[in-house]
This record gives sequence, structure tokens and C-alpha cells, in this order.
Amino acid sequence: MNLEYVKSVVRNVPDFPKPGIQFKDITTALKDPKALSFMVDHLYEHYKNKGITKVAGIESRGFIIGAALAARLGAGFVLIRKPGKLPADTIQKSYQLEYGEDTIEMHKDAIGKEDVVLVHDDLLATGGTALAALELVQEVGAREVYVNFLIELAFLNGTERLSSAKEVYSMISY
Amino acid sequence: MNLEYVKSVVRNVPDFPKPGIQFKDITTALKDPKALSFMVDHLYEHYKNKGITKVAGIESRGFIIGAALAARLGAGFVLIRKPGKLPADTIQKSYQLEYGEDTIEMHKDAIGKEDVVLVHDDLLATGGTALAALELVQEVGAREVYVNFLIELAFLNGTERLSSAKEVYSMISY
Repeated sequence: MNLEYVKSVVRNVPDFPKPGIQFKDITTALKDPKALSFMVDHLYEHYKNKGITKVAGIESRGFIIGAALAARLGAGFVLIRKPGKLPADTIQKSYQLEYGEDTIEMHKDAIGKEDVVLVHDDLLATGGTALAALELVQEVGAREVYVNFLIELAFLNGTERLSSAKEVYSMISY
Repeated sequence: MNLEYVKSVVRNVPDFPKPGIQFKDITTALKDPKALSFMVDHLYEHYKNKGITKVAGIESRGFIIGAALAARLGAGFVLIRKPGKLPADTIQKSYQLEYGEDTIEMHKDAIGKEDVVLVHDDLLATGGTALAALELVQEVGAREVYVNFLIELAFLNGTERLSSAKEVYSMISY
């Protein structure tokens, strides 16, 4: 079992969500027990000695491996969501899309100054959402912030925008 | 560490999402490393000898403990989502809400006839979404289907609608 196997069970879906886009569908890897276990084990090995106290997953595919990894690391899990879904006091961050703007939010009391945080999402494309999440976690004063993706579309150079993170690690790169 | 501790760190948010509703906010339990570990351990103990091969989590809070539990059980994880978000061929199920209708969907190839499936969501209220998810998994021919919630609002009698499941287990009941 290795990353090549995981890569082999990620499904390529042409023209989703719009014509010309080759969508990397991780659901075929998640439903595969061996691939799911391997992904969590692999990320656990990468992060186990970094002192991570909270994993912050970006809604909603970032909740999947994010929470499994948090439980495995003995860390807490924090939800970064679209506006209006979190019930208590939140802080927000808006960011530019190709056309228009989007916003994410997090509970104000989710992360403290003593926390070492791993921001996790399934896919890194241009990095807009991840940058907003990184900045949100930095603003509440987290001690260190790591960023992780299952898959990076390297030709879009998304990691460049995330240079203020302690480290950016993508498990699989295309 | 026990379920009373977990219950003590679930936050009650009055009047969310609308006046008169006491919202059970699990984010305060998820961010607590001890509570997160305990929930996954507790559910693992409950399900470890039931031969679960797939955990199907309902978007999006059902992805959190659902995926962590799948990884722990050595099962695969399946996404049940709102329409239009899954990239490959899906099957759908619509269900009645208090006002109007909602729909969930799942990839057609996510679950097979050999699978023993655990449908997971964070909260059981009237059970409309859970029943639709249960029926979706039954329609594709899964061998046995269990249903699990972190929290059940028992006064709404949601479990009654789920009687076709092999077992319905709620970790915490209000």
C-alpha cells in the first residue's frame, strides 16, 4: 500500500463541474477501506511529531480526512464553514473568486493562542479558500499554522499564496 | 472520560436557526481532543463486531465522526450529499420537509450488495433525512443497514420512522 495506489483509485471526471475541467473525485478513494486507512496513516506519520492541537477542516470535503486525522493525532477538530451555519459567535473572511466573492467563517472560540493548527482541505487549486482559512486561523492568534491537502493541482501554483504557513504539504500532486 | 463528559461539552444555543429552537452545538465537543477521541472510541466499541464495511455520512456534519469511525473500523467512507455536488452517476431520494421538499443523493457505485452499511449523522430530529438516506442505501441492495446518531432529540420520536434498519443507536439522548 502506497500513494501510487491511492492515486490509482482517485477517479478523473471530465467536464465537472463545468466543461474543460478534469475533476479529481476522491470519493472512490474514500470508499476504499485500504486507501482510506492509508491516507489517515500517512498523514498521521507526517504530522505526529509537530505538536498539532487542532485540525481545522474546510467545509465540506475537508471535514472527512480532517476529522479522522484529528482523532488519530489526539487533537481537536474545528469546522470552517460557509456563512450562517455555525450557531455561536463567528469571525469571517471574504475572498475573491474568478467571478464575485465568497466568505468562510469559524467560531470565535474555536482556536486559542496556545494552539498549533493544521488547516486541511481535500484539494488545492488556486488557493483562495485555503488562504482565507489560513488568515482566519492566524488572526485568532494560533501559535503555528500548517496547511495540508490530499491533492494539489500543482500547475495552478496555489502553494505560493500560502507562504505565511509554517509548512504546506500536499499528499498527491498533479 | 464518559458520555456525561461529552454531554457536558455540547453547547446549547437558544433560538438557532430560528426562534424557539434549542440548537445542540457539537462543535464544542469536536474541538475538545478528549471528547473527540472518546466519541470515536465509544462508537468503535459499539460497532467493531458488526462487520461494517462502509460508513455512509450525511452532508456535512455527518462527515466528521462518520469518516473518523470508518477509518477506525477499517471500513470505507461514503458521502451522502445535497444534489449536484457528486461528480459521477448518482441515485437520489426526495423527502418532505415541514414546508416543501428536499433531496439527497449518493454515487450509484458507492455501495454494493455485499456491504454492511452504517448510516451516520450527527443529529436525529424528526428523521426525514435519515429515512431518505436509509432507503437510498437499502435500494442499492446493501446486505444490512445500521443507523447511528451522536445526538437524538427523543421527544420527536424520529427512531420510529427508521424501524427498517437493523439497529438505530443514538450516543446521547435529550
